[in-house]
Amino acid sequence: MKHPIRILGIDPGLRRTGWGLIEALGNKLTFVAAGTVTSDEKRDLAERLVQLHDGLQQVIAAQEPHEAAVEHTFVNKDAGATLKLGQARGIALLVPALHGLAVSEYAPNLVKKTVVGTGHAEKDQIRHMVKILLPRARFDSDDAADALAIAVCHAHHRGAASMEAKVAAKVAAGAVRATKGAA
Amino acid sequence: MKHPIRILGIDPGLRRTGWGLIEALGNKLTFVAAGTVTSDEKRDLAERLVQLHDGLQQVIAAQEPHEAAVEHTFVNKDAGATLKLGQARGIALLVPALHGLAVSEYAPNLVKKTVVGTGHAEKDQIRHMVKILLPRARFDSDDAADALAIAVCHAHHRGAASMEAKVAAKVAAGAVRATKGAA
Repeated sequence: MKHPIRILGIDPGLRRTGWGLIEALGNKLTFVAAGTVTSDEKRDLAERLVQLHDGLQQVIAAQEPHEAAVEHTFVNKDAGATLKLGQARGIALLVPALHGLAVSEYAPNLVKKTVVGTGHAEKDQIRHMVKILLPRARFDSDDAADALAIAVCHAHHRGAASMEAKVAAKVAAGAVRATKGAA
Repeated sequence: MKHPIRILGIDPGLRRTGWGLIEALGNKLTFVAAGTVTSDEKRDLAERLVQLHDGLQQVIAAQEPHEAAVEHTFVNKDAGATLKLGQARGIALLVPALHGLAVSEYAPNLVKKTVVGTGHAEKDQIRHMVKILLPRARFDSDDAADALAIAVCHAHHRGAASMEAKVAAKVAAGAVRATKGAA
């Protein structure tokens, strides 16, 4: 296993989708790149989804990741916000899969627990720990920092990735509560 | 305006996405084709979204629609179901937009009111009216019938499509209640 695995983490959102790429070689993690794909709020929804699609496609073409990981977020506000997030998340899952990458999903609690040590960390703590775990990390948004945290989470759990996928499939099938305790 | 407009209606869903194609020439509507794109529940979510993407892409390549219309659904059950629908809906909006089609969105109430005459119609009434409006219509699922109803709705309202797009953009921006009365 002398070749590093390039992992793309994605934190999906309709307005801003964060992405972060790291390399994992055994236990050693190295920052490669991170950024934010944005969509223009003045455009129609379908066009905004195309913007997210094109942005993520460019990232994947330029960075050539081997695996992808996407946060499995739940929005508890209103149904409209959840639907919006779902649409962006659909694109975030689709684009790497269209490129033949395996896409793992992680509950926010697990990402936080892996990176910060507790499932109830604040944004600041996540940014702080991402900088400690990936000293060279540079990111232009909280979403990009979250995306790096998701990539770190995948690096730690990818041995158990097939299990995670099963959990995610159950979550997708409606057994939402199952993941909340999965961390 | 001697050339018929080919309209693709899409009723998105993760398990089953219905599609229906009609031709509109002035007030005359003609059934062309309808069907259902399904995803395999045993596969990972990202793979299921690829299945929906590939299925819709095949439909568009084969049927060559000029415009697309997607139902703007809200799920009031749980956040998990809404997120699932959102993901499928993201693909339903993305694929025609990637093919350069304008994608309009219509609230379920408006679709029902246009096709049945009331915003609170049952599935049976929609199937019944779709058969009356499009006598040659053949569909293999309620989702395909709904997709035809969405295409009919777009045929009736496409003059006001730019206004609809603005309403949809507002809905996407969170002003969800606005559409509920838009019918």
